[in-house]
Amino acid sequence: MSDKKTIEVYFDFSSPYGYFGIQKIDRLAEEYGRVGEWHPIVLGPIFKHTGGAPFVTNPAKEAYGIHDWNRMSRYMGIPYNHPDPFPIGTVAAARAFYWVSDQDADLGKTFALKLYEDYFANGKNISEKEVVLQTAKDCGIDVAALADALNDDAVKSRLNKEVDTAIEKGVVGSPYFIVDGEGFWGSDRIWMVKYWLKKGGW
Amino acid sequence: MSDKKTIEVYFDFSSPYGYFGIQKIDRLAEEYGRVGEWHPIVLGPIFKHTGGAPFVTNPAKEAYGIHDWNRMSRYMGIPYNHPDPFPIGTVAAARAFYWVSDQDADLGKTFALKLYEDYFANGKNISEKEVVLQTAKDCGIDVAALADALNDDAVKSRLNKEVDTAIEKGVVGSPYFIVDGEGFWGSDRIWMVKYWLKKGGW
Repeated sequence: MSDKKTIEVYFDFSSPYGYFGIQKIDRLAEEYGRVGEWHPIVLGPIFKHTGGAPFVTNPAKEAYGIHDWNRMSRYMGIPYNHPDPFPIGTVAAARAFYWVSDQDADLGKTFALKLYEDYFANGKNISEKEVVLQTAKDCGIDVAALADALNDDAVKSRLNKEVDTAIEKGVVGSPYFIVDGEGFWGSDRIWMVKYWLKKGGW
Repeated sequence: MSDKKTIEVYFDFSSPYGYFGIQKIDRLAEEYGRVGEWHPIVLGPIFKHTGGAPFVTNPAKEAYGIHDWNRMSRYMGIPYNHPDPFPIGTVAAARAFYWVSDQDADLGKTFALKLYEDYFANGKNISEKEVVLQTAKDCGIDVAALADALNDDAVKSRLNKEVDTAIEKGVVGSPYFIVDGEGFWGSDRIWMVKYWLKKGGW
């Protein structure tokens, strides 16, 4: 645990804007002497709370979304292959992240980025526990121990608590950034997060 | 009608992000030798098409929205007094805009900005025809002629056509910018509109 102040980052592993939004957030944090604190959540309960829905439940928004995600991919120079199935449940991925991250925060981030890459670039369905374990293996994580952990009640309730905390903190979508209690929704708002850090608020 | 290429701007007079998004768009257009082409629409049919809903139909999103609109106001240095009632119907305002704008595009824009200001800064309920006419009067518009026009079927169908066209063009919210057929949703995306203009796409 760092003594540094944080940028809290809430995201769902099935969220394209989460995928784009998280890529450079730690570089921004470092620039301002902070550390990124990553919190994968699952959007289901968030949507239930906000009345939201995934883009692709509506054809017009789906068309805009797919166009925009490919445009973001070209803009950022990172791959995007719109996955099928999409969206997916990410409970196993998020639980696995916390188990890894609690032991080694850096390895947790490497694992999170690889989960995103496997889903949005490599065509792997990370809703499946076996796929999550394979991604973990690729990151050098102890897969036998992780497989056990995924059945552990403490690991399950850890994710539930993170989702509850997210809702309490006002998280309404993915990604959602919090700087000193100030929340910013969307990968479109990283410019504002940066300006907030620079100015110390306004 | 200008021969210049355009930035098409779709917005609803009841949309806070439309209010913020439109303030500097013509300055950006000018910077790239273009002209802003403003198209007020009404979000009701758009939401019906996209399955969307105003932020304030949900308490969590309402809280985020009001916080964000006040933050945007301080950031941009323009007033924001969260209106009551909110949101409102903007059929009369939008119809009035087209009638004015078709005769004098510059006056149309002055009128649009004043309608926004009256609603989001001055506490006036621009859903009411009488208020729209007063705002028009403040802009030096012929109010008797405008009052007649608001009952004109051609003026009514003009707005309907604009909404249909917006849906055909993929408009999924307010504000929505179109540059050479490329659509950008949200006042958060003006940085990307600018980059698109600069690069000529990517």
